[in-house]
Amino acid sequence: MARFGLVGKMTALPGQRDTLLALLLQAADLVADAPGCEQWIVHTEPSDPDGIWVTEVWRDEADHAASLSLTGVPEIIGRARPLIAAMGERFTLEPVGGKGLPPAS
Amino acid sequence: MARFGLVGKMTALPGQRDTLLALLLQAADLVADAPGCEQWIVHTEPSDPDGIWVTEVWRDEADHAASLSLTGVPEIIGRARPLIAAMGERFTLEPVGGKGLPPAS
Repeated sequence: MARFGLVGKMTALPGQRDTLLALLLQAADLVADAPGCEQWIVHTEPSDPDGIWVTEVWRDEADHAASLSLTGVPEIIGRARPLIAAMGERFTLEPVGGKGLPPAS
Repeated sequence: MARFGLVGKMTALPGQRDTLLALLLQAADLVADAPGCEQWIVHTEPSDPDGIWVTEVWRDEADHAASLSLTGVPEIIGRARPLIAAMGERFTLEPVGGKGLPPAS
């Protein structure tokens, strides 16, 4: 199985970015121990005060799919959705190597 | 200083992706020990056979800037440039938290 990477943007409703950011950091804590989660980082975007990005690396795509139904995650998604004005760019990648990637499992 | 994140795409000339990929993995090895380098991952893109992405996290923007003149890096850039058809999307981010980010330094 190939590693699975995701880079995606969401745009918060005006004034809601920091609330959304806090929810995503909670999600990051939940998925950190999920099987196959190698990276799950939340970013703000200096050029867009409403922008939030998440960059993810998973052992494979199935592990990513399973993470969406981990205990607590659907609840966070439900609380986050009303704060999101739009989903933005989304890129599916295959991480190959470099610093920050654990040895292939 | 805020952390500094970069997500960027380049498109290889047809047939040159794997050569370019190998050069970027060499660059990853060089920058891995650079001051402030927290992540430097090279990805392919399943939806684009010529696409390569690099996702980077630096302690701050100055450390990123300094990395471009590390010993060996300008040479790799010089060898990579003729293999690149176009630079694509480029997003400057501020990594905030989550799995895969070391404690703030």
